[in-house]
Amino acid sequence: MFTQPSNISFTLPGWLEEYARGYRATTSLPEQMAFVVGASRKNVLEKSGGPFAAAIFNSDNGELISLGVNRVTTEGISILHAEMVAVAIAQRKLGHYDLGHDPATGYSLVTSTEPCAMCYGAIPWSGVRRVVTAARDSDARAVGFDEGPKPGDWIAGLEKRGIGVVTGIEEEKAREVLRLYRQMHGKIYNARGRDNVNP
Amino acid sequence: MFTQPSNISFTLPGWLEEYARGYRATTSLPEQMAFVVGASRKNVLEKSGGPFAAAIFNSDNGELISLGVNRVTTEGISILHAEMVAVAIAQRKLGHYDLGHDPATGYSLVTSTEPCAMCYGAIPWSGVRRVVTAARDSDARAVGFDEGPKPGDWIAGLEKRGIGVVTGIEEEKAREVLRLYRQMHGKIYNARGRDNVNP
Repeated sequence: MFTQPSNISFTLPGWLEEYARGYRATTSLPEQMAFVVGASRKNVLEKSGGPFAAAIFNSDNGELISLGVNRVTTEGISILHAEMVAVAIAQRKLGHYDLGHDPATGYSLVTSTEPCAMCYGAIPWSGVRRVVTAARDSDARAVGFDEGPKPGDWIAGLEKRGIGVVTGIEEEKAREVLRLYRQMHGKIYNARGRDNVNP
Repeated sequence: MFTQPSNISFTLPGWLEEYARGYRATTSLPEQMAFVVGASRKNVLEKSGGPFAAAIFNSDNGELISLGVNRVTTEGISILHAEMVAVAIAQRKLGHYDLGHDPATGYSLVTSTEPCAMCYGAIPWSGVRRVVTAARDSDARAVGFDEGPKPGDWIAGLEKRGIGVVTGIEEEKAREVLRLYRQMHGKIYNARGRDNVNP
């Protein structure tokens, strides 16, 4: 007889909330990004997922709404990229599936690497009004990750929908985390079902 | 002090498992799709989410692995499109974040409408080897949904990654469900934060 789970639950790493409490509200994008990249580094060192982190901030006052990290290998679900996790937590916390539902308050998604095709497509639905990124698509590919079938001019696709994009903030710090993950032989999962531990 | 949920959980509608038990294994794509479109119709009639359903089948013998429906408005999380839900359940059930991890068994994603930009980008990561669709992007747009910044030739982007695509199966049945949703004044949520109940 057919049966399937009637609910799906995923967890965040135990270290994450304490780490997040170290954040002091700032509207400085490099400071926000240093905090997010720090979480991606900790996710690697604690082996609690892939080398990616993302957070939702109130764009006006820098308040942290949610912090997410990649949980693909640790939760066994491919959609749990850091951006998706950060969006889901923020929406649950604020009680709305559209973070743009109140036009008086704008939210930013700050992510340690430029989004893959999935997270890119998820951004308009999330309701954020700004996306801030650090490491490049090419940096993710350099360690073996595939960014997927993303339109060439992905920035224009967001700007057309009223979402501002700022790239290359603390780019080198984020790139170092990707390299660290490779040095630590972290799992590289990608589109073609090749599930390699890097040499 | 900063605080956020340490886990996120979402549920499926109560009616869904019983509905899924009515499925008799078949490799006929129209029969698989009729079952999936039936779930999207039930999701509308029961007001348990948007007018979309998706399922994962074993491609060789037609066994149903998971059935998902859209839960965006009912769970308050924008990423809970039917395809994402079906993928997450299948991966949890089979115990792997890559449904293609065993090359001997291929899985299909059968979805009642062509995927939006997010679900499109999620397909390569899911590990499915085939995607089967019913209603068109244009049908979703016709009732007010935005499919997002999806590459023009989305089918080629999947085929390049070894994922077969079959479109237009039971297309008219699926289109009727979209129209029914509009007639019932279902919520149309989209990229620009317009959260309208249709006239």
